[in-house]
Amino acid sequence: MLSANSAPEYVFCQKMATLALMSKEKNTLIYGRHPVLDAIQAGQTMDKLILQQGIRGPFEKEVRQISKQYKIPVQVVPKERMNKITRGNHQGIIGFLALIDYHRLGDILPMVYEQSEVPLLLLLDGVTDVRNLGAIARSAACFGVHAIVVPRKGSAMINAEAIKTSAGALTKIPVCREDSLLAAAEMLQLSGVQLFASSLRANQKMYDLDFGGPTALVMGSEDRGVNSNLLKLADQTFIIPQRSTVDSFNVSVAAGIMLYEVSRQRGI
Amino acid sequence: MLSANSAPEYVFCQKMATLALMSKEKNTLIYGRHPVLDAIQAGQTMDKLILQQGIRGPFEKEVRQISKQYKIPVQVVPKERMNKITRGNHQGIIGFLALIDYHRLGDILPMVYEQSEVPLLLLLDGVTDVRNLGAIARSAACFGVHAIVVPRKGSAMINAEAIKTSAGALTKIPVCREDSLLAAAEMLQLSGVQLFASSLRANQKMYDLDFGGPTALVMGSEDRGVNSNLLKLADQTFIIPQRSTVDSFNVSVAAGIMLYEVSRQRGI
Repeated sequence: MLSANSAPEYVFCQKMATLALMSKEKNTLIYGRHPVLDAIQAGQTMDKLILQQGIRGPFEKEVRQISKQYKIPVQVVPKERMNKITRGNHQGIIGFLALIDYHRLGDILPMVYEQSEVPLLLLLDGVTDVRNLGAIARSAACFGVHAIVVPRKGSAMINAEAIKTSAGALTKIPVCREDSLLAAAEMLQLSGVQLFASSLRANQKMYDLDFGGPTALVMGSEDRGVNSNLLKLADQTFIIPQRSTVDSFNVSVAAGIMLYEVSRQRGI
Repeated sequence: MLSANSAPEYVFCQKMATLALMSKEKNTLIYGRHPVLDAIQAGQTMDKLILQQGIRGPFEKEVRQISKQYKIPVQVVPKERMNKITRGNHQGIIGFLALIDYHRLGDILPMVYEQSEVPLLLLLDGVTDVRNLGAIARSAACFGVHAIVVPRKGSAMINAEAIKTSAGALTKIPVCREDSLLAAAEMLQLSGVQLFASSLRANQKMYDLDFGGPTALVMGSEDRGVNSNLLKLADQTFIIPQRSTVDSFNVSVAAGIMLYEVSRQRGI
């Protein structure tokens, strides 16, 4: 909240995030064939692997196999770009260490019910801007969101800038990375969670819906909105009512408004 | 709004903003003693003047007098910093041309009443981050805010980045620059507008207030919140209810939530 006495809390959060990063930021990269593969097999979580364009044969096969087993996205890039990421002898492979510990979506709901709370989850369908992701997490922390769910591919990396913009929230709220947001959404529905997605084509105004039950809000990407399959799967679609039809909300502002409406209805 | 079909509008706004800037960006700076003073006297609006440290005598006096007359903030900076802003022969003075046309606050209310609308104004008490200012303006456009009021000093400059982040909204919504936000707020109150300010110390929850009448919302700065004199003057203070007491909203998210609540109550 913004007020004369909000500063200390804000500063505190910033400090927490900075401290969390100081211990990890130096080691956000790992490179070289043995170091990278050893780290993964030793249980180190990675956000992604970068493999040098043109690498073939047993090493490529090993990387592909291990990335599949540990569910780490692989990006193939030219050697010149890899040389810009590190000056070290990367031998054609660079790994980005995860700055946060990811959670399993299947663990979230039992945890929430154990605390006698009504689930509130946020599914981010392709938010690619790290600052938007950070700002969304910051609002999610304010409104007590139980988990943020992102797709493994096509989402903003949770890097130092995202954590800083979140004022530390990304180090506190559980984040789940899913192979398929659609499958994750279906799983949530089977567990009794209602899926609400925002869409400009929807007829229902957000405040006319009932968010009192177990709720998952689906936010679209900055440019394309919510994927059509997710829209079809949704129990309800809605619009945030607005006066102007030519203007659009920033994705983090839209998320804040949606979470506020849920909280308002729940009487927080 | 965020949805599968929001992209074209967003792109349209971006293009508008880019076009607006292309015509002006080349000429955002003016320097040299005669060019700067002549431009001001010819009616060119300036965001601020930069005067070289150590300049005394008749020229300094003339700058001070003209800045007072035309209400342009003056910043005194060392020559080395001025040389980084322009390589031209600035002769100790640089002017930043305004990218938008500012409005007179006194003209806003009659215009609103003429359109048979209920005034909704946004007073930004020292929002200094240009991207936050841009995002706030973007939400303000969505919710049909009639004017954004900023202080002449201590507010983010409405530069190219602010306009880009606003997706063009800053070129559409009237912006008023006031010598004193406090005086502006008093003037609004005398015209029948209620002043609502956010404060963590407030007891009232935002959704328990009535925003149906002529309304001015006061937002605080990113770090210090709303100035205590403005808080005292406010007809109502409120909190945005939140679950977590250690987390805080980004200022542009808080503005979006406040404007949503007003719009929700007004049945937009």
